[in-house]
Amino acid sequence: MGPAILLDYLGVALFAATGALVASRQQLDIVGFIFLAMLTGMGGGTLRDLILGVPVFWVKQPAFVLVCAGAAVLTFFSAHLLESRYRWVLWLDAAALAAYCVYGAYKGLAVTGSPVVAAVMGMMTAALGGVMRDIVAGEPSVLLRKEIYMLAALVGAASYVLADAAGLRPLHAILAGYAAAFGMRSGALIFGWTLPAYHSRPGREAEASLEAARKKRAARRRRRQ
Amino acid sequence: MGPAILLDYLGVALFAATGALVASRQQLDIVGFIFLAMLTGMGGGTLRDLILGVPVFWVKQPAFVLVCAGAAVLTFFSAHLLESRYRWVLWLDAAALAAYCVYGAYKGLAVTGSPVVAAVMGMMTAALGGVMRDIVAGEPSVLLRKEIYMLAALVGAASYVLADAAGLRPLHAILAGYAAAFGMRSGALIFGWTLPAYHSRPGREAEASLEAARKKRAARRRRRQ
Amino acid sequence: MGPAILLDYLGVALFAATGALVASRQQLDIVGFIFLAMLTGMGGGTLRDLILGVPVFWVKQPAFVLVCAGAAVLTFFSAHLLESRYRWVLWLDAAALAAYCVYGAYKGLAVTGSPVVAAVMGMMTAALGGVMRDIVAGEPSVLLRKEIYMLAALVGAASYVLADAAGLRPLHAILAGYAAAFGMRSGALIFGWTLPAYHSRPGREAEASLEAARKKRAARRRRRQ
Repeated sequence: MGPAILLDYLGVALFAATGALVASRQQLDIVGFIFLAMLTGMGGGTLRDLILGVPVFWVKQPAFVLVCAGAAVLTFFSAHLLESRYRWVLWLDAAALAAYCVYGAYKGLAVTGSPVVAAVMGMMTAALGGVMRDIVAGEPSVLLRKEIYMLAALVGAASYVLADAAGLRPLHAILAGYAAAFGMRSGALIFGWTLPAYHSRPGREAEASLEAARKKRAARRRRRQ
Repeated sequence: MGPAILLDYLGVALFAATGALVASRQQLDIVGFIFLAMLTGMGGGTLRDLILGVPVFWVKQPAFVLVCAGAAVLTFFSAHLLESRYRWVLWLDAAALAAYCVYGAYKGLAVTGSPVVAAVMGMMTAALGGVMRDIVAGEPSVLLRKEIYMLAALVGAASYVLADAAGLRPLHAILAGYAAAFGMRSGALIFGWTLPAYHSRPGREAEASLEAARKKRAARRRRRQ
Repeated sequence: MGPAILLDYLGVALFAATGALVASRQQLDIVGFIFLAMLTGMGGGTLRDLILGVPVFWVKQPAFVLVCAGAAVLTFFSAHLLESRYRWVLWLDAAALAAYCVYGAYKGLAVTGSPVVAAVMGMMTAALGGVMRDIVAGEPSVLLRKEIYMLAALVGAASYVLADAAGLRPLHAILAGYAAAFGMRSGALIFGWTLPAYHSRPGREAEASLEAARKKRAARRRRRQ
């Protein structure tokens, strides 16, 4: 355990705070804050533990539940002090993403021993809390934003796995993974870093898309006659 | 077991009916009714059992599957008799919420022994079926409505846990929890009870939010020069 | 195992491709493609394994992760060649649905021995990958389309279960299930096959619905006086 457990508390608390901030954007009441804080803070890690087949972390250590509730209450009484809550959501989410992708990779590696599973586990569980938060609250998904997001989680998880394989001490491997993920996501937020996105046309509306394909086929058929 | 098992059937059947009513609002076919009924009726309990690490209830007792299918078929042929299906969704959801928050707390307590975990488990699993229903069907989430919702689930679960700790007989503890949750949610539906919601401004659109923060910083920078 | 394992790879690869195509419609970057491919390709099967209480398939065989990543990369570089990506989504989804409903039924039957659980498992896990893909990407849900969808999954799963109970050889039972599901979904896509949908009025907006019910009651009260 050692230093890794700190990542866990850090990731949960920060994700919980983003959930509570989103609750404030939706003007929910205090229990809505707590629910979204728990969903965001504990959702990704719950899935991680279920998939790994280990006991769910907050069932074993109910302190995590109180961490989420605390973050929700704190946010409820202080969110009005923030200039731009959405910016805070993005930055706290970045710090939490970095903590959780490394912790997911750490736990994935410890349980399965497979570097591929560990990297995927880090990426997925870091992203899923935020994805669930945005879906449940009806916010635009961070996942669909243009700046680098998933790549930062993947790079952080992979950096940790590589640093561990290279024989670094646990604390150093953790710091390497965290720095890689947070650095990359910070650059994306500050400088608008993007990967080359899929450059072709965006999708048409579903029905328009089917209609267009139908017309093209009809035109081709007419030409052939 | 005893009386608690009745809560389970009641919660599943009523949640299934709300899923089917939402399917009728979306004008799905009968299989869509069954799918939404199963998702709503069994979704929250499935998560509860996975998180508790016990066998999923409907895999052990496939009768629950038939209960959901039955509720879906019944709704398919009778929903047109209802004056306001959305009102029925809200009221059946209230009765199901009360059953499921108590049953979730009961099962959580039986498996983990932790009152905190039991209360959270009751609240989460009671809410998640409805949340999934609304997301999948594209309905406005009950969670985001103004009247008290999550608090009723939390109070019901906590009341059961407290009544059990106080040494009440199982049936009495169950009735206490059910009455607390259903009473509070009923009051919310009839009298529009709300908790003080987060009173500051609602969130701006994500992009507008970032833009506004950028402008404020620019203005502050100009003032400083 | 034998022939059934092929279904698993087929379903995962095809669902992954639909996830990547949806990512291209949303103009995500390559890591977004990979994430949506994994979510769609492995999401339904992950839930299936969790519910059945068996080890999650891709944790045991990380090759599935690479299959999804490969499908995502392939799609990233070839999606612009397609005339109508949305049509491809529907057809690949049909082929994947057929594979996954049979495989889900096969695995459900092998683990639980219950034909009811097996049929439901086939239907649910075949549908859930696509449902998650559409929700996360903000696409209109295939589930809410008018043409037959869930029924095809249910019929495919049930056909496999019946064929197996009738003593057919594994390969034949699999082919029977696949043909039933894919044939029915193909007919739905080509000829617009539908089940009789719920024929009454669609749902009003949530608030309008409550308002209308309130007015009707008020009118009835006035008449009574």
